[in-house]
Amino acid sequence: MIQKIDHIGIAVRSLAEARSFYEQALGLTCERIETVDSQQVRTAFYTCGEVHLELLEATDPESPVAKFIARNGEGVHHIAFRTDGIEAQLRAAESAGTKLINAEPVAGAGGNRIAFLHPKSTHGVLMELCAPSGDASTD
Amino acid sequence: MIQKIDHIGIAVRSLAEARSFYEQALGLTCERIETVDSQQVRTAFYTCGEVHLELLEATDPESPVAKFIARNGEGVHHIAFRTDGIEAQLRAAESAGTKLINAEPVAGAGGNRIAFLHPKSTHGVLMELCAPSGDASTD
Repeated sequence: MIQKIDHIGIAVRSLAEARSFYEQALGLTCERIETVDSQQVRTAFYTCGEVHLELLEATDPESPVAKFIARNGEGVHHIAFRTDGIEAQLRAAESAGTKLINAEPVAGAGGNRIAFLHPKSTHGVLMELCAPSGDASTD
Repeated sequence: MIQKIDHIGIAVRSLAEARSFYEQALGLTCERIETVDSQQVRTAFYTCGEVHLELLEATDPESPVAKFIARNGEGVHHIAFRTDGIEAQLRAAESAGTKLINAEPVAGAGGNRIAFLHPKSTHGVLMELCAPSGDASTD
């Protein structure tokens, strides 16, 4: 079952310029900066209520985030939903005809298990399902 | 101060088709369908933790949502942040160089006061600030 929105990933050209907007114009506080080599991004994390905002700057011109920006410009890259049963959630999505990018959960940052749904079958939004790594009770 | 993400507006071509995905594939429950004549949209509302998801279907081919879809395809249309002081928040954004769509709050749905920030100065995301109509304490 989906419990909440875990985070929103936002693709930006320059982390420094985007941070200036989020911090000075919106007044949010950056919690940390992290480079995630496997995703070829440098990320700035913000907390906004129960949701995290993740600004994503590409570290390689061939990376998914760089290609996203080349195609769409800056903007929302993905929405991640926290679920208490990621495998059951994936099977439910699949049964409903959703195209999966990850048919099975893969290891994500922070010990999460994650899987992406293809934006072609989610009405235009790249969606991530995520669950703590200990989640196996309902799968 | 920004307290949380109030809602995410998602532009869809067909409310019926998008509802099928959100309800059957994600397992979310539609709370209500509402036509907002001033925005020329028909909206399906979902609750996901403390955030609302609003699916937006255009009711007129010349409406903002129809034009958004013609330009970008389906996807995230805007993110709304709840603030406890919308006028102070607008002035802070303006001071930081943010282009405002609404220089002053206007009346929104549900008795909220709302104002939009221009996506050109928010790094690609159309952003809404919103506050309950009784909010005047910090302005």
